[in-house]
This record gives sequence, structure tokens and C-alpha cells, in this order.
Amino acid sequence: MNEKLISSIEPFYVMEILEKANKLEEKGRKIVHLEIGEPTESVHPFIKKEAISGINRNNDKYSHSLGLPALRNSISKKYFKDFNLKISPDRMAITTGASSALVLSLLATMSKGDEVVLVEPYYPCYPQLIKIFGGKVKIFTTRLDENFQINTSKFKSFISSKTKLIILNSPSNPTGVSQSAKVLKFLSSLKIQIISDEIYQGLNYEAETKTILNYAPSAIVVNGFSKLYSMTGWRLGHLIVPMKLIRGVQKLQQNMFICAPVISQYGAIGALRISKNEIDSLLSEYKAKRDFMLSALNDLGIDVGYSPDSSFYVFCNMEKYCKDSLKFSLDILNRVGLAVAPGRDFGPTFNGYIRLSYSSSFKNIKNGLKRLKKYIKEYT
Amino acid sequence: MNEKLISSIEPFYVMEILEKANKLEEKGRKIVHLEIGEPTESVHPFIKKEAISGINRNNDKYSHSLGLPALRNSISKKYFKDFNLKISPDRMAITTGASSALVLSLLATMSKGDEVVLVEPYYPCYPQLIKIFGGKVKIFTTRLDENFQINTSKFKSFISSKTKLIILNSPSNPTGVSQSAKVLKFLSSLKIQIISDEIYQGLNYEAETKTILNYAPSAIVVNGFSKLYSMTGWRLGHLIVPMKLIRGVQKLQQNMFICAPVISQYGAIGALRISKNEIDSLLSEYKAKRDFMLSALNDLGIDVGYSPDSSFYVFCNMEKYCKDSLKFSLDILNRVGLAVAPGRDFGPTFNGYIRLSYSSSFKNIKNGLKRLKKYIKEYT
Repeated sequence: MNEKLISSIEPFYVMEILEKANKLEEKGRKIVHLEIGEPTESVHPFIKKEAISGINRNNDKYSHSLGLPALRNSISKKYFKDFNLKISPDRMAITTGASSALVLSLLATMSKGDEVVLVEPYYPCYPQLIKIFGGKVKIFTTRLDENFQINTSKFKSFISSKTKLIILNSPSNPTGVSQSAKVLKFLSSLKIQIISDEIYQGLNYEAETKTILNYAPSAIVVNGFSKLYSMTGWRLGHLIVPMKLIRGVQKLQQNMFICAPVISQYGAIGALRISKNEIDSLLSEYKAKRDFMLSALNDLGIDVGYSPDSSFYVFCNMEKYCKDSLKFSLDILNRVGLAVAPGRDFGPTFNGYIRLSYSSSFKNIKNGLKRLKKYIKEYT
Repeated sequence: MNEKLISSIEPFYVMEILEKANKLEEKGRKIVHLEIGEPTESVHPFIKKEAISGINRNNDKYSHSLGLPALRNSISKKYFKDFNLKISPDRMAITTGASSALVLSLLATMSKGDEVVLVEPYYPCYPQLIKIFGGKVKIFTTRLDENFQINTSKFKSFISSKTKLIILNSPSNPTGVSQSAKVLKFLSSLKIQIISDEIYQGLNYEAETKTILNYAPSAIVVNGFSKLYSMTGWRLGHLIVPMKLIRGVQKLQQNMFICAPVISQYGAIGALRISKNEIDSLLSEYKAKRDFMLSALNDLGIDVGYSPDSSFYVFCNMEKYCKDSLKFSLDILNRVGLAVAPGRDFGPTFNGYIRLSYSSSFKNIKNGLKRLKKYIKEYT
């Protein structure tokens, strides 16, 4: 057994909350879930239609290792429409979720011992994947009172000639903040390879949606269909790399995955046919949920202190009530039956935080916040 | 760029054949494909029904990281029915194809520099995956005149205290041979961790189908739904590990993949409901195709010289016509429009071989062998 590796991988603390919540539910207790990182929306009928038609027409054998040409073409067109960018389908790989896109991009770019900079708070998988593939994690921390923006002058003195990769996640999980154009420009000027995880791209409520590719043409982009299109279980993502990397990515994909799930690839073709109007109305709904959550938190005396402008998360500083976010989250669960994600999953600096998701129904969000109110009133 | 890693990964030579074949087809030439490693059968209606019902009922969000409990239970029952083995669903992971099962099992067991023994001829991905994750490949070669069985006394002196893992593939791609019970017993007695890739399990035409788990309870088993159930594009596999490894596998799965594609997991539940009668009639058809292929080869003066008793491949020694299987395969393609898989994909020793697949229709197989006859008659 590779005990050293296995034991170095940290569990997701939110899983402890989930497991505990499941046990309580088995005992008949009603739990409200605001810890989830996936939309509870049904997928659009276009997605269902294309997938079912793929199944019925027996289009379910291996695809091209880089993905169905029709899907890569549709994604290419979307980049042109949304960002005025010409991205050749030839430097695109359709992947098994954004997760595999991240795996492929790390393996294609990182050598053993390479220093990889993460921006804290970060998606919990990043440091684990870097460890699994033998890189060295270096953590740059952003601050709530700087709206979780990367402080460019601090960042400049933070990186060194040893920094081989920067992993960016904008819009961010867990803060729900997008980095500004100024920050993206700055990062692009550093001449360090960027892997930009844009899985929450499109879920923007204040400013226009962005891609690093408008600033750094040789950045690697990780994206997928899980969040904007609610296709989490379909496991479908895509990866855009500079042309010189695509052959390497393809060889890795052939050996590790053969190709991405084909029924899901057809579903994704359907997703890209959804009209702008329908996406816009989805976005207004998310925006209304966000606004409701922020104002309800305000009513509880919790000023989040920054502007979550994208994705579907609010990252709450609870330091006045809690030092250990796992204990705190378990206590909330036990006392009032509300599940939240503990901040320590997103970096050691944020162990006094919890992450709340507004990706579920209005009713669920309302119920959850009512329970949080009760908790704060009665147990803190 | 991780140039060292990327450039060390060998391409699949069969891809050169495929690309060339595609180009010829684009020009209007009719090509017969016997190089393919996937069944051309449509999937069973049960598979379609369960998958479509999953889509329509919106059961398409993330599943448990180890897979849907209902699917793991069905697989557990199958092991009891087929092999009289009680395999707890708790030590099973549903994976994104057998490919990911292999990736997870290597990462969970292999440390950097560990020596991994492969049995040549081997599935081309094995040495590449071992290289990608930092292991050392050691190749044990089997011989046609020993029916591609592992010679146990030679194997005993081949391994050393440095051998940390053995990857077994029985039934085998590319030979279509299953290792005997005697060999499985022998391997199990060595007290070296075995990863047994049983993806062709069930496709047996002479003897009963076997699993290493009947001989080595602590072996790791890689399996999936691509071959027996023709679900290649669905990307669904499963992994069975000793209980002490499952937590590590789960942590790797959560970070690298989250979970296997959920629509495909529902499809697989359908696959496991297919009756024994229907599987038996599929097997008789494969057997008839194999017999036809062997007798047609015999008519061409090619005695394959061993007994391919399983999977859907025949591995032909063509050394009397060819020294370089890639050149030879390209020549066959150019001259008579027949695509075959070059032997060098399966190990350096077998560069005088080609692999023929009988996983397509009778008509296609007949056409292919007619073309091979023409080639041998006119161009050798």
C-alpha cells in the first residue's frame, strides 16, 4: 500500500457533516442542506433529449479521445460568441468532469517537486491533487477585507523563480468572488503558467463573465457542464491548452481515460443549445437567492463584509462564534438540523468560516436561514 | 511543460492505423476494421431503459463517491452467483471505466520507484500508466508455444524481493487466452500484491470463467461493463480492493473524479438484470465468430498455433511475412483496405504479430478475412 500518499490526503471535512446528516435523517430527523456544492435544478430538456437520442441511436461507443468533434465545435463557437475568442477545437479536450481536466492539466505541466501556488481560500481538491502527483503546494492567502481579491503587490513578492504554476479559481468556490480584470491582467503579465479553473464561469450577477484567455492566451482553462448546466452527475468537463500541449494531454487521456462518457457528451451538445434568455432567467433566479441570503444573514447580525458576485456560495466569517469550523458545523447540525460546509476545508486560515450554498430552492434556503437564526439566538 | 513525462509516453501505434484508415475513408475508400477493441453490438434494452429512466427522473446529480449502493449491491450478488464469493459492497468502488479503476489501484498501491511486473504481450496502457505514476516496469514474456500461459518456474526466478506488484490480465488482450487455475494458484502463493484486470471476464468459450479472488482473496480486481455488455462509451468500471485499501481509494476518487458518471451507473444496473440465457446466446455467437476466424486463417495457411479461448481477439504470428508490425499493418491497409492492430503495441517481443478482433458482425469479419487472403496471396 502507498501508505505515505494515502495518509497525506486529507479527507473533506464536509463529508463528516454529510455522513452525520445522513445518520440523523435515517433516524427520521429533517435536515436542511446548505452545504451542497451542486445545483439542485433539473437539467434542461435539451440535455435530456440529446442524451436519450444518443442512447436510442446507439451512439454510445468510444468517441475520439479528445471528444466528439461536434461538441468541441460548439464549445469553440461559444468562446467566440461570449468572449470574441477564436479557440481551435484542436486544442480542446472533452474530459470526465472538470476534475479530470484538472488531473490532466497537472500531469501535463507539473514535474515532481515543482512549486504550485494556490490562492486561499481554495477548492479543497487542489492541494490534494498536487500532492498526489508529486508537486509542492505554496499558499497565497486573500483577505475578506480586500474582497478576496488577489493583492497584486503582495503576490508579486510572494512568488519566486521556483513558482512553476498558479492555480486560479474565478469565480471562486468558496467565496463566490470573481477576480477583477486588473488582477487577471497582472497574473497574465507574470509569465508563469496559469491553470484557470473556470467551472463557475457564467454564474455572474454583477459584472460580465470573464475568461483568463482574454488576458493570457497561453493559460490552461478547466471548465465543464456541472455548475451552470446542473450536470454534476454526468461528469463532463473540458480543457483548453496551448497547442503545444494538446498531444501530451491526448496521450494522457488515451491511457488514463480513453475518452469522456459519450452519453454525457451528447447531453452537453444539448446544453449548448439553451437560449440566452433561458440562461438569463436562471441567473436572475440565482441573483435573487443570493440577495435573499445576504439580507437574511444581515438580519441575523452577520454582515459578510464582502461582495459575493458569482458562483452560488457565500463564505461567512463566524469567528465571533467559532474557532473550529468542523466542531461549529457539527454543533449547528446537532442543535438545529442545518448542514453547512466548514471553512477549514478551504484552507487553514479560514477555520472560523462556514460556506453556505444558495444553489437549492428558495424554500430550502429560507428554511436553512431560519434554522441558523435559531442557532445563533439560542446557542451562541 | 512536463516534457520528460509526456515524451516518455508512447503513442498507440494502432492509432496511426486508425488515422490513416479515416483519411482513406474520407477519400471514399471502403475500409474493413478488424483492429477495433470494442464490441459493435448495441447495448441491451435493459441498459437503455434504466439509463433513460435515470435521466427522466432527474437522478443525475453526484452519487456516493464509491458509487450507487444499488449498483454495488448488484455487483456483490453477481460475485456470489458466479463465483460463490461474498464480496462486501463496502470494499468496491464504481469507477469511470476500467481505466480509472486501474489508475486508482496503481495510485493506492504503488510508491515511486516500485517495480511492477507486466506479462507480455500486455494491454498497451499498462506500462504507460506505471510510468506516469512513477513506477518501474519489468516485463515477463509469455510464449505462443506455451499457449501464452505464464511459465510458473520461469516466473518464480524472474521476480525478486523488489517486485511490489504484478498486473495480470486474464482473459487477455491481445491473446484471447485465460490463465489456467494452476497459474492463478501459483501467482496467489507468491504473497505479492496482484492487480487483476478482469475486464474480459465472462467472455469465455471453453472453460468456466474465473476470478483471481477465488485464489487470492487480497488481490485487487479491475473490471467493468465495456466488453461483456458493450458499454464502451459509457465509461463504467468497478474496482474491488481489500478492506484496508478502500478508504484510500475513496479519498483518491473524491479528489480525482468525485464519482463515476451517474447515468452510466443506472445503465449498469440494467446490464446486471440481463438473463443468463441472453448472455449465453451472446457467447455462442462470439464462439462461432472465433471458430470462423480461426478456420478462415487456417485456410490462408495461418495456423495461429495456440488456443484463444476467451475475450474477442486472435493474436497472429506473422513473422514469416513481417518484421515491423506497424509497417506491415500500414501496408495491409494501403493494399487491401483492411485495418489490423500492430503487435508492437503489446510489447517489443511481438513486433512480428498482428491482433485481429472478432467483436464485429459476421459480415465484417468475413470481408476482413477475404481482404487478408488477397493481401497474403498477392503481396507477400
